[in-house]
Amino acid sequence: MLKSNFQAMNKKIPVGILGATGTVGQRFIQLLENHPWFEVAWLAASDRSAGKPYRDAASWRLATPIPARVAGMTVNTAAPNGDTPKLILAALDSNAAREIEPAFADAGCAVVSNSSAFRMAEDVPLVIPEINADHTELIKTQKWYRKNGGFMVTNPNCSAIGLVMALGPLHRRYGVEKVFVATMQAVSGAGYPGVPSLDILGNVIPYIASEEPKMEAESRKLLGTLSNGTVKPADVALSAHCNRVPVEDGHTESVSIKLSKQAQAEGIIDAWQDFRCTPQKLKLPSAPEQPVIYNPAPDRPQPRLDRDRGNGMSAVVGRLRPCNIFDWRFTVLSHNTIRGAAGAAILNGELLKAQGYLS
Amino acid sequence: MLKSNFQAMNKKIPVGILGATGTVGQRFIQLLENHPWFEVAWLAASDRSAGKPYRDAASWRLATPIPARVAGMTVNTAAPNGDTPKLILAALDSNAAREIEPAFADAGCAVVSNSSAFRMAEDVPLVIPEINADHTELIKTQKWYRKNGGFMVTNPNCSAIGLVMALGPLHRRYGVEKVFVATMQAVSGAGYPGVPSLDILGNVIPYIASEEPKMEAESRKLLGTLSNGTVKPADVALSAHCNRVPVEDGHTESVSIKLSKQAQAEGIIDAWQDFRCTPQKLKLPSAPEQPVIYNPAPDRPQPRLDRDRGNGMSAVVGRLRPCNIFDWRFTVLSHNTIRGAAGAAILNGELLKAQGYLS
Amino acid sequence: MLKSNFQAMNKKIPVGILGATGTVGQRFIQLLENHPWFEVAWLAASDRSAGKPYRDAASWRLATPIPARVAGMTVNTAAPNGDTPKLILAALDSNAAREIEPAFADAGCAVVSNSSAFRMAEDVPLVIPEINADHTELIKTQKWYRKNGGFMVTNPNCSAIGLVMALGPLHRRYGVEKVFVATMQAVSGAGYPGVPSLDILGNVIPYIASEEPKMEAESRKLLGTLSNGTVKPADVALSAHCNRVPVEDGHTESVSIKLSKQAQAEGIIDAWQDFRCTPQKLKLPSAPEQPVIYNPAPDRPQPRLDRDRGNGMSAVVGRLRPCNIFDWRFTVLSHNTIRGAAGAAILNGELLKAQGYLS
Amino acid sequence: MLKSNFQAMNKKIPVGILGATGTVGQRFIQLLENHPWFEVAWLAASDRSAGKPYRDAASWRLATPIPARVAGMTVNTAAPNGDTPKLILAALDSNAAREIEPAFADAGCAVVSNSSAFRMAEDVPLVIPEINADHTELIKTQKWYRKNGGFMVTNPNCSAIGLVMALGPLHRRYGVEKVFVATMQAVSGAGYPGVPSLDILGNVIPYIASEEPKMEAESRKLLGTLSNGTVKPADVALSAHCNRVPVEDGHTESVSIKLSKQAQAEGIIDAWQDFRCTPQKLKLPSAPEQPVIYNPAPDRPQPRLDRDRGNGMSAVVGRLRPCNIFDWRFTVLSHNTIRGAAGAAILNGELLKAQGYLS
Repeated sequence: MLKSNFQAMNKKIPVGILGATGTVGQRFIQLLENHPWFEVAWLAASDRSAGKPYRDAASWRLATPIPARVAGMTVNTAAPNGDTPKLILAALDSNAAREIEPAFADAGCAVVSNSSAFRMAEDVPLVIPEINADHTELIKTQKWYRKNGGFMVTNPNCSAIGLVMALGPLHRRYGVEKVFVATMQAVSGAGYPGVPSLDILGNVIPYIASEEPKMEAESRKLLGTLSNGTVKPADVALSAHCNRVPVEDGHTESVSIKLSKQAQAEGIIDAWQDFRCTPQKLKLPSAPEQPVIYNPAPDRPQPRLDRDRGNGMSAVVGRLRPCNIFDWRFTVLSHNTIRGAAGAAILNGELLKAQGYLS
Repeated sequence: MLKSNFQAMNKKIPVGILGATGTVGQRFIQLLENHPWFEVAWLAASDRSAGKPYRDAASWRLATPIPARVAGMTVNTAAPNGDTPKLILAALDSNAAREIEPAFADAGCAVVSNSSAFRMAEDVPLVIPEINADHTELIKTQKWYRKNGGFMVTNPNCSAIGLVMALGPLHRRYGVEKVFVATMQAVSGAGYPGVPSLDILGNVIPYIASEEPKMEAESRKLLGTLSNGTVKPADVALSAHCNRVPVEDGHTESVSIKLSKQAQAEGIIDAWQDFRCTPQKLKLPSAPEQPVIYNPAPDRPQPRLDRDRGNGMSAVVGRLRPCNIFDWRFTVLSHNTIRGAAGAAILNGELLKAQGYLS
Repeated sequence: MLKSNFQAMNKKIPVGILGATGTVGQRFIQLLENHPWFEVAWLAASDRSAGKPYRDAASWRLATPIPARVAGMTVNTAAPNGDTPKLILAALDSNAAREIEPAFADAGCAVVSNSSAFRMAEDVPLVIPEINADHTELIKTQKWYRKNGGFMVTNPNCSAIGLVMALGPLHRRYGVEKVFVATMQAVSGAGYPGVPSLDILGNVIPYIASEEPKMEAESRKLLGTLSNGTVKPADVALSAHCNRVPVEDGHTESVSIKLSKQAQAEGIIDAWQDFRCTPQKLKLPSAPEQPVIYNPAPDRPQPRLDRDRGNGMSAVVGRLRPCNIFDWRFTVLSHNTIRGAAGAAILNGELLKAQGYLS
Repeated sequence: MLKSNFQAMNKKIPVGILGATGTVGQRFIQLLENHPWFEVAWLAASDRSAGKPYRDAASWRLATPIPARVAGMTVNTAAPNGDTPKLILAALDSNAAREIEPAFADAGCAVVSNSSAFRMAEDVPLVIPEINADHTELIKTQKWYRKNGGFMVTNPNCSAIGLVMALGPLHRRYGVEKVFVATMQAVSGAGYPGVPSLDILGNVIPYIASEEPKMEAESRKLLGTLSNGTVKPADVALSAHCNRVPVEDGHTESVSIKLSKQAQAEGIIDAWQDFRCTPQKLKLPSAPEQPVIYNPAPDRPQPRLDRDRGNGMSAVVGRLRPCNIFDWRFTVLSHNTIRGAAGAAILNGELLKAQGYLS
């Protein structure tokens, strides 16, 4: 009762943050400050943080201060309670997510998760709104949804999201058959404390646990097609090499692709530059005007210079050139904690609102 | 007359350094301190440096002090003079090399060059002694050699050398057909002042001018076969993505390969670990005991931890795993200013000595 | 005639940028996009750039794109011409400034300079608007001003500005007698290409040419008092140690101070937190609401987390604690290319407008 | 019995390493490979590591491989047992040290500790062999020593050691009265995992817990004088500002000093360059030939270029210039995990051997 009055008064949809104290949880709170539709109303984190004011529980690592509204909010334990809002943005590590997220869906929440725990589950949509907004249909096959309207939607791994945003427009126009990709991933992707500085200063770590199989499988599901209530993964062969580099934010990826139909450079660049899709049509608040930006300079994209394009929600592509083995080579960059994590989940939340799943 | 007396007395072969003040020139001087065969006897650099003592001409950037013997030597202009020794190690940029190196060969010098200027010339050997020591035969086709015994031998680009050391043993045993490679290259590869810090701190630059075509063409020549006085490039398709990362020394490369014959992981690892070749058999002073080292840890090789194996002359390989598209994936690392530049040229000089070309 | 029509129509004051293609010049253009009072109307740079469209002349290194209005503007040679506006923001290196800036003042321009060339000249105001806005009175003693209204005003070195913003409020309240300061300065302070990456990756350079004497002398002039048309430097003894560290933006400084009057920690923190001055009272568009922010966390300020406070115009202070030798120790941070350079000059321009010097 | 036979046979003194798996423990093992006097014979670490072969227990982070002899040794629990040798090099964190080290001294071991736990204890020598080798006399006041010959000796914090090596020769010649010091400390000083990369990439952290009081108090004890079985701290006022910077190894320190007697630059430089002391006279194996090296270049010392002088055991000083407030300013650098930790303890062990405390 109180809650709906509250909503009526301030017109914004209350949002709960699971894993509010971590790197991605902090980004949620930063990005939701002044959000036109959503408002942070409930925070939860590990038992260590529960009961504390957020400002004390979180080791805030962002360059903007903690929003005043949120700083004093008390952190809850990571279980649904009477104050838990319908919409939950979840930034848990996958082990925690495996246990905790279903409890929220079971309690009737719309769980929009950044974790890998359920991404590949058959009835869980794995969504980039520009690429496969229709996959949210899977929600209707979830037992929670049929029971009480609760459900779960996920966004992909931060390494897959930039790649798939670059591949999506080409897959539609030309068909993508094979993909080689070597990533140079930022340290913020590993959370906090994450990568020890002794491991990465002046160094490259050519390995990120579980990253390559995730990147490969998730990309196929994202580019897949929904029919009869299931997603058929795209028939794309992917081979990923995942590396960590001493960069704070922004994953850079070297990509070679083989296409089904012949393509010219102009056509490919047009496919990227002109790409507009559901989030742009629906004018979702976090949707970038131009989701894929082609930068024609010979040495771009670069993480420090390009990761913030479209408020961190655009993928930036560059260096399109023929490949000696496949058809084309290029570089793609995306902001791993915005487009690749917190912003991805918020955009999914906005899509769900626009599609009517939150009412 | 004086020169040969000098040689008789101190038993070492005098060496001249062209481009002595640059990053690679400094490495030459560092690596030749206490060399059992060679001794720095003559230095040359740009006109700006000529006439100065080396200690004043060079902006020395290495972590060991300038060898006392060399610090006081006067830098010559970059032209052969009466004191120029037979053996010249050259570290010029390619534009300078194009003009200056032939003048030394024409004056009867053995020019062992690190520059790209003549690497792809038909009669110039491009040599990694472990891979294609026999290619030095090309020397005999050089006009200078026939005239007065002068000649030119080159080592490959720093990005090609690690790759080819990893490919070489596999090419012999299984045949390499196709190669995808994405590099993460250290800043020292660009010389000094080279890459501005504003460009690379916390950043990746997905472009190095001319690097990709060099890497592709040189690798084919290195793996090629000599017959009838010419080198036939290997029939290997290569597609390179070259990136600069904030690492001081050591190029890391993500590689996928397709082989002609079926291979098991054990066989590949054996091929690397057991690989010994001409420089090891000849016990060349700079030859590493084990030119290719396989590190079985899941997150190696890493530039800071592995670049100095074999005194910076070994390539370190790791992460061998099946490829979803080709046959195998792995990571290779090599020290770009030692094995990839100064050490490469010195090892070539040692090979030439052992093969009798310096007498 | 045309120019004044132009002004009437668009209501904004046209601004010329001297040294428009460099690091600080780029910041000018970035910060002036959407400025409420000023509008970039004229660009000048070295002869190498003159005649080119700005987008081709500048090697743009900022994370936001070149403003569309400016990208196509033609760069002028660095001399006054018929289109030169009254207000000139100058970001020249000091050698160039020494020759070029007087020519503009002589042509009647209001030259707001970031260079060190004339900062210590007797009749040139060196101004931080929060600290010594009244020093602009010196303008009236300049020969150019008396001749045709042209004049010159400067802002301090990027290392002095953060220090003096922290010292200013304390000097007023307690008197500052002695100051030890050790800086850890960002690479952007050296411009572009500036510091080679080989010099600074994983390294500290304990030297910045001419920086220490500048920092010491400028601080005394800034804290000095104007009387009878001259500035008497403050009687403060300063000893500076200037170091370069691998940080992109933001100068961090460790400071120990001796005060004339006894102070308590609370009083000092209040002096900082409550400090508001001319720019705040005049509501200058670039004035931060709170020019000096005290961060009570034990490990702050930090450049990556705090440099953007107040849109990069606030100095952030922390770690106030007693000193074993003087009275107090603290750390101060400021954004070196915003508050320490481009933003400083723009704020000076705004002050001059508010004081009536631009009409 | 077996143990003494073993010693007789191989002539080297067996050494036990406490905390063998950590950053400093690894340096002990690296530095003791091929040590002429000592040989690693026994390893201990936390219960998590006990029972495992060293190669599995340690996350080895050094650029040279684990010495083959040590790789297969089994790690013991951190308590004396029948195999524990007399000489123990300890690299425990201070909480662990407080409990564990006394147990070893009590069991008759010579505990040479790198921890801060007992450095300031009245009867525990805090020693830099070049500075205060005579302080080992304190050993004789220890209860363990009187009981069974066991004792404890410590080396200082990594930030104090470089400073005191620079101050020592000046204190002897001129008397040091006051010292301002601002440090820029490497991340390896915080151990592993230590500083998160998200905290330090492109950043400065102006705080290291407990570091400043340690640095101040330890420096006074080191420069103090022994009489009547106690150490009287030197009457030197110190004020330290400790900062962490993105450097792997090597602490750089900006220093201002006030001297009792007037000094000229030449005298100070001579005092440093000519400084030779007990370890040099005794020809201790790890003693650098020149413990303090003055580098006259205007921009030195720098951590990447100078930390390895004297095999990492020399302090390098530079930038000597007058101070505006005290007498002189300079910069000092030392390798924090060699001279500042593992090498310091080994040199202390060598001193104890030479002084007869190990027999």
